[in-house]
Amino acid sequence: MSLEKFAIIESTLREGEQFVNAFFSTAEKIQIATLLDTFGVEYLELTSPLASPESYNDCVTIARLGLNAKILTHTRCNLEDAKKAVDTGVGGVDVVIGTSSYLREFSHGRTIDQILDIAQEVVAYLLSQGVETRFSTEDSLRSDVEDIVRVYRAVCALGVHRVGIADTVGVGTPRQIYDLVARLRQELTCDIEFHGHNDSGCAIANAYAALEAGATHIDTSVLGIGERNGITSLGGFIARLYATDPALVKKYHLPLIRNLDSLVARLVRVDIPFNNYITGFASFTHKAGIHAKAVLNNPATYEILRPEDFGLTRYIHVAHRLTGWNAVKGRAEQLGLCLDDEQLKYLTSEIKTMADHGRLTLDDVDALLYDAANSVGD
Amino acid sequence: MSLEKFAIIESTLREGEQFVNAFFSTAEKIQIATLLDTFGVEYLELTSPLASPESYNDCVTIARLGLNAKILTHTRCNLEDAKKAVDTGVGGVDVVIGTSSYLREFSHGRTIDQILDIAQEVVAYLLSQGVETRFSTEDSLRSDVEDIVRVYRAVCALGVHRVGIADTVGVGTPRQIYDLVARLRQELTCDIEFHGHNDSGCAIANAYAALEAGATHIDTSVLGIGERNGITSLGGFIARLYATDPALVKKYHLPLIRNLDSLVARLVRVDIPFNNYITGFASFTHKAGIHAKAVLNNPATYEILRPEDFGLTRYIHVAHRLTGWNAVKGRAEQLGLCLDDEQLKYLTSEIKTMADHGRLTLDDVDALLYDAANSVGD
Repeated sequence: MSLEKFAIIESTLREGEQFVNAFFSTAEKIQIATLLDTFGVEYLELTSPLASPESYNDCVTIARLGLNAKILTHTRCNLEDAKKAVDTGVGGVDVVIGTSSYLREFSHGRTIDQILDIAQEVVAYLLSQGVETRFSTEDSLRSDVEDIVRVYRAVCALGVHRVGIADTVGVGTPRQIYDLVARLRQELTCDIEFHGHNDSGCAIANAYAALEAGATHIDTSVLGIGERNGITSLGGFIARLYATDPALVKKYHLPLIRNLDSLVARLVRVDIPFNNYITGFASFTHKAGIHAKAVLNNPATYEILRPEDFGLTRYIHVAHRLTGWNAVKGRAEQLGLCLDDEQLKYLTSEIKTMADHGRLTLDDVDALLYDAANSVGD
Repeated sequence: MSLEKFAIIESTLREGEQFVNAFFSTAEKIQIATLLDTFGVEYLELTSPLASPESYNDCVTIARLGLNAKILTHTRCNLEDAKKAVDTGVGGVDVVIGTSSYLREFSHGRTIDQILDIAQEVVAYLLSQGVETRFSTEDSLRSDVEDIVRVYRAVCALGVHRVGIADTVGVGTPRQIYDLVARLRQELTCDIEFHGHNDSGCAIANAYAALEAGATHIDTSVLGIGERNGITSLGGFIARLYATDPALVKKYHLPLIRNLDSLVARLVRVDIPFNNYITGFASFTHKAGIHAKAVLNNPATYEILRPEDFGLTRYIHVAHRLTGWNAVKGRAEQLGLCLDDEQLKYLTSEIKTMADHGRLTLDDVDALLYDAANSVGD
């Protein structure tokens, strides 16, 4: 397990720009890049300078910001693209080429032998330019493992800094990712990066499995935005590592996840999903009476993430029919009301009956509690 | 691997009711239950009849609907709750008790020996009443494995139908779930259920890992709604199985996922997340030129889920700076316009430059294409 020494390659400004709703102006890119840098990601990956004139200029601009994060751009694996990438002044170039039969047949039309030649040519060029160089296959999970190993061995022999595994269509399972990365870890001495899509809901688990197997770099984007339904989300990946051990993510400024999610959601014109990791509105809510009781005793009973570590607070929902008398007692105490256990149990059954006939608000519950407290001693 | 023979325990009407925003009237519960039954889930789990008077009545009502799905309710592990559950006429009862030190200390206060006694008493009672009986530990991932094994051995000896593993706080990783379920699979002959929360983004992957290790039943809810940010989502779990092999989910009526997600989102007053599995608006969109080109040649290049199997369609986004000339060509063909490759490449660079300076619409692109086609031969 290399969980202790991993780096995040934050790709909101590359993969994220491939989200159907995304359009980032230069100013917005700088805003995102700066906030991610303050959060503490180790790398920022930018859209290929070949995509459009402004995409080129944005690489130049962001490379010159003087951020702590290393600035990468991402291009197809050919010499023309690699040269233009180097021209922008970025610190590293991520090149990619499809190796599955799907992409070889229907995308670029090259054989594995041809891929081997072009990979060596491009990697040798990039290394000669002194930039950090990553070579990745695309659709790695539907590629022949022996093909991948053969190409990676060749580029590793040239001294490539990092090879990448990309679950481009989101088909991989944690077990498959683990096995593939473990195989590469045995064969190769260079760093290993994982990029995973979330079509089948495994992007976070797959990134984690990659780390368990020896990967060193994980691609993320804020809210997971990217092609289709996206990739490993930054906040979700942080939540996963934190759940294993908060020390794993102490190098990042965790309360900024809320700022990052809010900023990117606004710029790409979506709402933060209600169930988003850490920042969805439901993330630190507790409802069923049995949960509320235990959380009031000790939050760790039903919380693996401590909201205060993310600059957030928990909410115990009281006004509903699944409520329990300990939760109602907790609310009465918040309000400074003196009610004994018998009264609280009676009021709880009242709340449940009222809540059976429609949505209750906290106001409704508070009114009931105040009335009961005021009538004490009547 | 028991991937071929699994059943879904659909818990929108139990775990889902624990979502902070959820309130379901009896009529709404019937609507959800009926649609889930038409979709084809094998079980429906309902809120404990102890929760409130209407919760009891709703168990009675739904148990009498004559659905194909077996109706379960879910209670604490004590005789009083179990008796009331049986009284409702449901076909099965899921009982649960916390076994982690957290829940033993801060929730119910019982020792493992006491849990063993109460478990045997409740399970024996339920079996004597002829209902399908499940015994589950709660917070299983933070419980001592030997404790769990000991309790499960005892209830299995009584003939319990199913034991359950619950990742109540969403801390488990696929590897941990696999190892735990595999251990139980070795020790026990009864069925094994998995219930997983999603706080750290692994709920779908964990459900899949449980199946790989020999679990037989998986808990889901529509959109994953439940305590905090929820559990394994029905649509996400289906997407995961479909990605492995569409035949695994051919027993379900897949186009109804859209109806289920829409219905439940409306009833609990949330938007379907933009990046939701299958039904999020981004799920079948393609943007980068290299993706669009290949998808136009063969959708399987960048789609592991076929939208048409879910009653949906794909959308290739053309009006942006990451576009490519093959995508623009595809749009021109949709419009019935005759433009040669040279023209299309020129127009693509025009589109990229325009898109560099702000959001483009498809209308903008279409206007450019029509203008070019109309000026041909001028």
